Amino acid sequence: MMRTHSCGNYQFCNSPAFHSYEYNSPGMNVSINNPEITTPAFLVERGIVQRNSDAMREKARQSGVTFRPHVKTHKTLEVARMQFGGETGPVTVSTLAEAEFFAAHGFDDITYAVPISPDKLERTAALAPTIKRLNVLIDSFEALHALEEFHRQGRSVFHVFLKIDCGYHRAGVDPDLPESLQLATALANSSAVHFEGLLTHAGHSYHARNPQEIAAIAREETSALTRFQYRLTERGINRLVRSIGSTPTACVVKRFDDTDEVRPGNYVFFDAYQAAIGSCELSQCAVSVLATVIAGYPQRGNLLVDAGALALSKDAGPDHVDAECGFGVVCDLELRQLPMKLKVLSQEHGKVEADAETIARFPVGTRLRILPNHSCLTAAMYDAYRVVENGKVIAEWKPVRGW
Amino acid sequence: MMRTHSCGNYQFCNSPAFHSYEYNSPGMNVSINNPEITTPAFLVERGIVQRNSDAMREKARQSGVTFRPHVKTHKTLEVARMQFGGETGPVTVSTLAEAEFFAAHGFDDITYAVPISPDKLERTAALAPTIKRLNVLIDSFEALHALEEFHRQGRSVFHVFLKIDCGYHRAGVDPDLPESLQLATALANSSAVHFEGLLTHAGHSYHARNPQEIAAIAREETSALTRFQYRLTERGINRLVRSIGSTPTACVVKRFDDTDEVRPGNYVFFDAYQAAIGSCELSQCAVSVLATVIAGYPQRGNLLVDAGALALSKDAGPDHVDAECGFGVVCDLELRQLPMKLKVLSQEHGKVEADAETIARFPVGTRLRILPNHSCLTAAMYDAYRVVENGKVIAEWKPVRGW
Repeated sequence: MMRTHSCGNYQFCNSPAFHSYEYNSPGMNVSINNPEITTPAFLVERGIVQRNSDAMREKARQSGVTFRPHVKTHKTLEVARMQFGGETGPVTVSTLAEAEFFAAHGFDDITYAVPISPDKLERTAALAPTIKRLNVLIDSFEALHALEEFHRQGRSVFHVFLKIDCGYHRAGVDPDLPESLQLATALANSSAVHFEGLLTHAGHSYHARNPQEIAAIAREETSALTRFQYRLTERGINRLVRSIGSTPTACVVKRFDDTDEVRPGNYVFFDAYQAAIGSCELSQCAVSVLATVIAGYPQRGNLLVDAGALALSKDAGPDHVDAECGFGVVCDLELRQLPMKLKVLSQEHGKVEADAETIARFPVGTRLRILPNHSCLTAAMYDAYRVVENGKVIAEWKPVRGW
Repeated sequence: MMRTHSCGNYQFCNSPAFHSYEYNSPGMNVSINNPEITTPAFLVERGIVQRNSDAMREKARQSGVTFRPHVKTHKTLEVARMQFGGETGPVTVSTLAEAEFFAAHGFDDITYAVPISPDKLERTAALAPTIKRLNVLIDSFEALHALEEFHRQGRSVFHVFLKIDCGYHRAGVDPDLPESLQLATALANSSAVHFEGLLTHAGHSYHARNPQEIAAIAREETSALTRFQYRLTERGINRLVRSIGSTPTACVVKRFDDTDEVRPGNYVFFDAYQAAIGSCELSQCAVSVLATVIAGYPQRGNLLVDAGALALSKDAGPDHVDAECGFGVVCDLELRQLPMKLKVLSQEHGKVEADAETIARFPVGTRLRILPNHSCLTAAMYDAYRVVENGKVIAEWKPVRGW
């Protein structure tokens, strides 16, 4: 039986043995082809996650930088510990629910890497003293004023990173604008915050089409921080940590230069998108959706699987590289790519295009595996992951959910 | 405290008072503008759901057809009961998890409206005898053979509907092909099944651009079944129920003619997509995502909200009607549409385009409401819905999740 634990604003089910891979429940140690494994299911190849985790950690170690991986892709204690070779370590999170969950389980150095808004200060302040370090992100005078007002009421002094825009143009201040220097100076001079560093995310690396284009963005990512840091040093503002992080840029660089900290996240699972732009090979994709063929229409050139939008998410995928990419890469149970295109998703149906001969090879009841376009979004559709080794389910991992 | 109940392959949290709207937990009876309501949150306007529910049920009643609404949009007991004016009644489901959940709570007449595959027969057979009627869907000889093999082993005789393709070309047999008549004849003659009826879903009504186009598809929907039923009658196969259902077609017809049963689902919530194609007005949309402005960049012409792909889903929306539709309709707290476009979603960020003047009116910390493109997919991102009346949260409803 599982225990359910409710704490703060999140809920999670806590396996009695999350730190081992034993799990005494139905569906364990059975083949992924066994009907006992209900489809759709989210499969995680433990061995591939291990290799992906080890390679990135080793690159960070050899580069002499702080390794603060993002945990938003998997949201599980098990993978977070694999990211540190079985230990805990500094992590990056995308929600306060993740922060609370990981803090409650020994991860005591956390960066909440979404710009903080005033309504979240109470909850953040409640969490901060329970761990060694909680960093928050800001990129506006408005947010700084909220932190100062909070401090004036006798409340927490937060550790903050200033978000810098390195070309993605989502969050962050432009490192080349004078206002950005003014904000950094205000942060350095404020008694309401501890100004810890500069943080950027090269999300535009996802718009690249190949490793060469990613490498150019990796240079923008580091140079934006280094350039800005230099200007601050000229003004006497020193000792700021430079923190970068995106899986594409982290994968294409040989080593991490010109930075102090790296925060990749998706690399533990990878996905069809990362393979299409050249961050990884398809063989490095660790997660897939197990689906069953529920109908075949050779005369219409398509078959249906029981994995739809709720099983896969509707991420459009790397359509800037392959306009025909569809909603994932359809494979057999051994993860060999099949001549099929997953073209349409409705809530519980996936419509796959294939020729009549291929359709005949995969009759109703056949199981397939679909490498998702975007593993972060697909993983989030599931309350539990089925962990696989050698075609058998060996464990079940439960992610933290919600906000 | 909540009780957690585990049954079969699904899990749900059972509020001690699901049948009333009292709920004694944090966040009740507070304004949606109160930081106690964490954002992103999924808000359900109870009054609008009530009106949407009543209108469709009344149309079905006046038409003299069986009303078997789909529950996959909301997946909650509370809305299912509202669909029947406070009672239970025959429902349509999209997963076995939904079937088990609703069956366990008094819904004893259920159609599982996705083609059944052999691996799901054991679980379906276990559920069927616990309720008055469980109908399953098939559209192939392969599936029929699986049911016959199951029956030969001394197991259940299933009640089946034959899925007919009325032009959507997702699931279903072509009503004009001789093989389809052969399959229907085989169903009628098989001792392994009770052949109950013909079922179709005009999913292509979602490709329409206005009510006139939807109305034309509504005629295809009914005529596909009626035409096929006529041919079966000529062969002595009688008493088959004709079951239709899609929210667009159900909304544009004045009454349900030439059918025996209707199965709309999305109409309880509606969404920006339905409004764009003319199934409803924007004011009939009952659900929204509550979000907080976390950054503003007037010089870049955008602001960020804390509702990203996990809060909204990445449904591309009615881009065949409005190429600039974005990922939802941005409104203020009173659901008045704002001059903003939600153009990009990443996992926890929503990037909104707006002019500098508008951005200035919505500083960091402001709360907004976003009408989702596709309420079914957005609702499924949440473990709990915040139920709202007059701007206050009055209840929390918990959907069944998973498969």
